Amino acid sequence: MDPSQVKIPPMKNLTVENITENVIRINSLCEDQRMKYVLERLVTHLHDFARETRLSSAEWMTGLKFLTEVGQICTDVRQEYILLSDVLGLSILVDSIDHPKPPGSTEGTVLGPFHTHEAEELSQGGSMSKDPEGEPLLVVCNIKDTNGKPIEGVKIDIWETDSTGHYDVQHADRSGPDGRCVMHSDKEGIFYFHAITPVPYPIPHDGPVGKLLKKLHRHPYRPSHMHFMFEKAGYDHLITALYLRNDPFETSDAVFGVKDSLVVDIGTAGKEYAEKYGVKEDHKLLTYNFVLVSEQETADLRAKNSKEALDKLGRKVKIVNGLPIPDLD
Amino acid sequence: MDPSQVKIPPMKNLTVENITENVIRINSLCEDQRMKYVLERLVTHLHDFARETRLSSAEWMTGLKFLTEVGQICTDVRQEYILLSDVLGLSILVDSIDHPKPPGSTEGTVLGPFHTHEAEELSQGGSMSKDPEGEPLLVVCNIKDTNGKPIEGVKIDIWETDSTGHYDVQHADRSGPDGRCVMHSDKEGIFYFHAITPVPYPIPHDGPVGKLLKKLHRHPYRPSHMHFMFEKAGYDHLITALYLRNDPFETSDAVFGVKDSLVVDIGTAGKEYAEKYGVKEDHKLLTYNFVLVSEQETADLRAKNSKEALDKLGRKVKIVNGLPIPDLD
Repeated sequence: MDPSQVKIPPMKNLTVENITENVIRINSLCEDQRMKYVLERLVTHLHDFARETRLSSAEWMTGLKFLTEVGQICTDVRQEYILLSDVLGLSILVDSIDHPKPPGSTEGTVLGPFHTHEAEELSQGGSMSKDPEGEPLLVVCNIKDTNGKPIEGVKIDIWETDSTGHYDVQHADRSGPDGRCVMHSDKEGIFYFHAITPVPYPIPHDGPVGKLLKKLHRHPYRPSHMHFMFEKAGYDHLITALYLRNDPFETSDAVFGVKDSLVVDIGTAGKEYAEKYGVKEDHKLLTYNFVLVSEQETADLRAKNSKEALDKLGRKVKIVNGLPIPDLD
Repeated sequence: MDPSQVKIPPMKNLTVENITENVIRINSLCEDQRMKYVLERLVTHLHDFARETRLSSAEWMTGLKFLTEVGQICTDVRQEYILLSDVLGLSILVDSIDHPKPPGSTEGTVLGPFHTHEAEELSQGGSMSKDPEGEPLLVVCNIKDTNGKPIEGVKIDIWETDSTGHYDVQHADRSGPDGRCVMHSDKEGIFYFHAITPVPYPIPHDGPVGKLLKKLHRHPYRPSHMHFMFEKAGYDHLITALYLRNDPFETSDAVFGVKDSLVVDIGTAGKEYAEKYGVKEDHKLLTYNFVLVSEQETADLRAKNSKEALDKLGRKVKIVNGLPIPDLD
């Protein structure tokens, strides 16, 4: 480092009052306008948080230790930072901002920390669960666009817990993926498979996030649900889940994921489905019609929402690569 | 978990607009009023940050991965979260809030990530450095209270890098503490010891924080300095450092620590010090008069500052255990 190359504006004697503007000024050497804007807002909120709480050195150290522990418990199959974001409501907020939904389309919800990339492809009518204790469930869904046209060839990730409320990755002795699969919709936009009826379960609460919930007297439970993720070029990536009606935790989900439009009733196959899918008439059945939004429609709606929200805050912005940055012109 | 015991107010259909109030409402089950207030401000700022930047899912994931990496690189002798707090200006801000200084007292500065609890006690006139390459430096200091009265028996932690700019804990092959010691002031409030002249050095920049600085085109250097920490019952804990005047990084410290009142000139012993301390007349000399503030004076000033700052923000608070909480009476 050649000190003569230091391009930072001179600064010393930083105080409670002037530290923020100085950190922002130094960070503004960054030529990535979006990163600069994100950092500017991050530093402002971080400092305002400390100023408004009059954060003590002991509390600061408690916070840093907590963040360190959250990082250190993470492994290839455990993402405690996603969990932290989930229980603070940040995950559902970011999903709502980034994936706005026009009326009539399927709403999104939290990804959660348990999606993996190792699920195997399942053929139509196959079974994604090896758990003999689970209550067998036939799931029949279709996918349409906002004009009601079926969408073929959508890649669908599906994942759920076993009957004890644990995802495969939570079992130390697991031999491979279970309770998860990848499917593709057929010509009519249909995909169907055998699973087990979801059960409520606690999010992992043996780590720092669990301890935080305990201090806040919050329970760690999620209502019974099954995760779905939809991908096809030209359509907005949809991360969602279906929740079972009347679950004891339906209105107190630890990660704020439940939306009425995603709450479903589990019924029985009845004559029609029994014949068509080769199950008994009293076999449990879940059906759902998913509606995907085009990438363009989502991008337009996202940009419109951004502009409106930032206008309200009195910030002049322009949308570059789909995201707002200050408009300095 | 007995669902009938769920005390959370029912909530569903959380949106960009209503998520914050709902997360705050759930967290308010916490009976620790201070923690509740800190969490309320944290959640508000976290959510406002996402709303104002219109944070994308990809950026959110980048952020969570970054925070995970910061946690995972931490060890017993490396605290990357303190480093992150330092480069974002949070550390100096929290120190300024928690340890306000009345005029005439010694200002505080950043602790940094390199203080340890393993330094050995050094007698008056001992040497804290084993580095033969360092430029020998005699340090003679005294400690007084704000009335000018010497303070005896103050515990002083002192630490500095070796001549290559590394703290002992940064050497994988270290055999024990070096460049650090604990001393106690004598009856006249004096402590003196042999050290080496501090050199500028980069904060550890081979980890996630270093990568962040690089993206921001910020250099990782700190100007030459020596750390001091003072503890004695009845006095406010003082964490500070002395900086060398005209250091190339004096006005661009990567962690915002330099204050004019802490900038010193390195001189030579001269006749008086040479005779008194048994060194040559051209031996390098650093002298400083530290002034500690009583715990009570600091507590009063801290409470006054808190009240004033929060009044300005229109928040009605009361001070409990030295820290503000909302005054709901």
